Amino acid sequence: MKSQIRIAVIGLGAVGRGVVTTLDRMQKENTSSCIISAVSDSRSACIMPDGIDIEAMLAQKEKTGICGDPALSSRDIINSAPYDILVEVSPTDVLSAEPATEYIRAALARGAHVVTSNKGPIALHYQELATLAKKHHVSLRYEATVAGAIPILHILEHDIIGNKINALYGILNGTCNYILTRMSEEGLTYPQALEEARKLGYAEADPQADVEGTDAAIKVVILANTIFQKSISLDDMSITGIEQVTDDALRLTAGCDTTIRLIGEIIPDKNIYRVSPQILPKTHPLVVDGSLNAITLKTDLAGDLTFIGKGAGSFETTSAIVSDIFYILQSG
Amino acid sequence: MKSQIRIAVIGLGAVGRGVVTTLDRMQKENTSSCIISAVSDSRSACIMPDGIDIEAMLAQKEKTGICGDPALSSRDIINSAPYDILVEVSPTDVLSAEPATEYIRAALARGAHVVTSNKGPIALHYQELATLAKKHHVSLRYEATVAGAIPILHILEHDIIGNKINALYGILNGTCNYILTRMSEEGLTYPQALEEARKLGYAEADPQADVEGTDAAIKVVILANTIFQKSISLDDMSITGIEQVTDDALRLTAGCDTTIRLIGEIIPDKNIYRVSPQILPKTHPLVVDGSLNAITLKTDLAGDLTFIGKGAGSFETTSAIVSDIFYILQSG
Repeated sequence: MKSQIRIAVIGLGAVGRGVVTTLDRMQKENTSSCIISAVSDSRSACIMPDGIDIEAMLAQKEKTGICGDPALSSRDIINSAPYDILVEVSPTDVLSAEPATEYIRAALARGAHVVTSNKGPIALHYQELATLAKKHHVSLRYEATVAGAIPILHILEHDIIGNKINALYGILNGTCNYILTRMSEEGLTYPQALEEARKLGYAEADPQADVEGTDAAIKVVILANTIFQKSISLDDMSITGIEQVTDDALRLTAGCDTTIRLIGEIIPDKNIYRVSPQILPKTHPLVVDGSLNAITLKTDLAGDLTFIGKGAGSFETTSAIVSDIFYILQSG
Repeated sequence: MKSQIRIAVIGLGAVGRGVVTTLDRMQKENTSSCIISAVSDSRSACIMPDGIDIEAMLAQKEKTGICGDPALSSRDIINSAPYDILVEVSPTDVLSAEPATEYIRAALARGAHVVTSNKGPIALHYQELATLAKKHHVSLRYEATVAGAIPILHILEHDIIGNKINALYGILNGTCNYILTRMSEEGLTYPQALEEARKLGYAEADPQADVEGTDAAIKVVILANTIFQKSISLDDMSITGIEQVTDDALRLTAGCDTTIRLIGEIIPDKNIYRVSPQILPKTHPLVVDGSLNAITLKTDLAGDLTFIGKGAGSFETTSAIVSDIFYILQSG
């Protein structure tokens, strides 16, 4: 890959700002030779083929609310700015997957690599987008879409090659895990724990996608389709959320040194794709507290491997995106 | 890298047999195009430039005790057999690091990549061997030397690039963890738990290197020197084993919902390299049971990440070695 790589970042929320700040710091520390050639927020865009002064741009955005020229937009960047890698972290509805899918499609068709944190395009359109990436000899990376800071896609793709993955079990939604932890540890009822999660910012204003299990199920779909070469959608899954888990049930399990967690499950040979509350021994490595995520892989050689980390947060998502960018740089 | 890669395997204990069996299976499944061009055990060697019939060779070894021609040795392979990657899994004393270091040095000097499971050469001679590998444009990989099945070196090198690792804490010795778990959970005394670990094959006949903390310390040295670019030896470390941990101490900690584990610790900015028994909350992700290993990384972006897996075992070591082989194949 050529020596100075140009990166365009679509979306300057906490994650987009984290990515440009991290890349800027790494360039100043001489640990990266990437430059940011374009950025956009919802109301403007900034295109500088020789590299944007990140500190000045962020200071301007802080002051004026926009990062660049209001006459320019994300589409101007995607279709005509110079970039080798598109970092697509735009606000995107997970169920419609737009506008992220449109952006990703256009960037891949231009022959640019794409790194995204948006689950929708990967859950709904992975086959199409992966085919497009292959056709143009570029990479499509999406570590940030599953399990937050845990580098689970890197691990599955590269770190344990030679192993057969017999099953994957994961705590893939931090909100549900927080609620179940608080019910179990403090004896809160479900409405009390949900209210607490809302107040602390762990639950969305509308927490339905979390508590019904849809968010965890979307991550199961992504893992099944990208790692296990399946072609499933949410309709192929059995999904049970945590709304029916009562404080009585948690009290009963506690008496047996067990507890309840919402587990996403893939058993590839049996085509089992499921999200459901399950009873686990309290000492099981998957039983993590609060808003953590955790994934256990059952493998033929390495045995059981468990990975635990924060499931969400702008720094954690930034970490996943930066690791994807460096993956592309190293493979190029 | 050329299409058919030749691999030589020095050592046909459980790990060496696991490696050749796994590569043989992968070749038959068309997921690998490697051939095994040479193998040796302590009494013989077999060299077949076009590929050894692995099933026949293992059957012969099972029947006769030797894998090939008793007139040939490991040194014949290393110095004159054709191979692109040397898998060095010979029985090697960890403190003298021989004969593994001699083998690795000779293979690198011939321009071959090396994958080893031997801790000694990496702990004692990393700088020299890494320099030699660099000079000959080949890789030296040693995932199997630290934390068994957990792909911790892959993770640190590649999966979380962009993160600053502020600290690493690890349960790096399964024997000590087994003993402390049994003392804590069953109220066994130290001698009782040690005896049980011996009977179950978790502890060596001479368990001193484990219980004194030396084995965990060697892994700290490897991590410090290879990942954190330090240049330390065991003499630079503070090492306390588990022999002084009493059942009384464990009972006291249990009353506060805490327990004691032997923790290896690296705080790179403060040049702290330590192995010592530490008190941890029972719910801490690092508190794993039995002979498991676990590592927590404290990072600036990804937060705390914890990885848990089996700390030893021939399948687990095989997994680490095969992942190193594929790393070399993919980078080539």
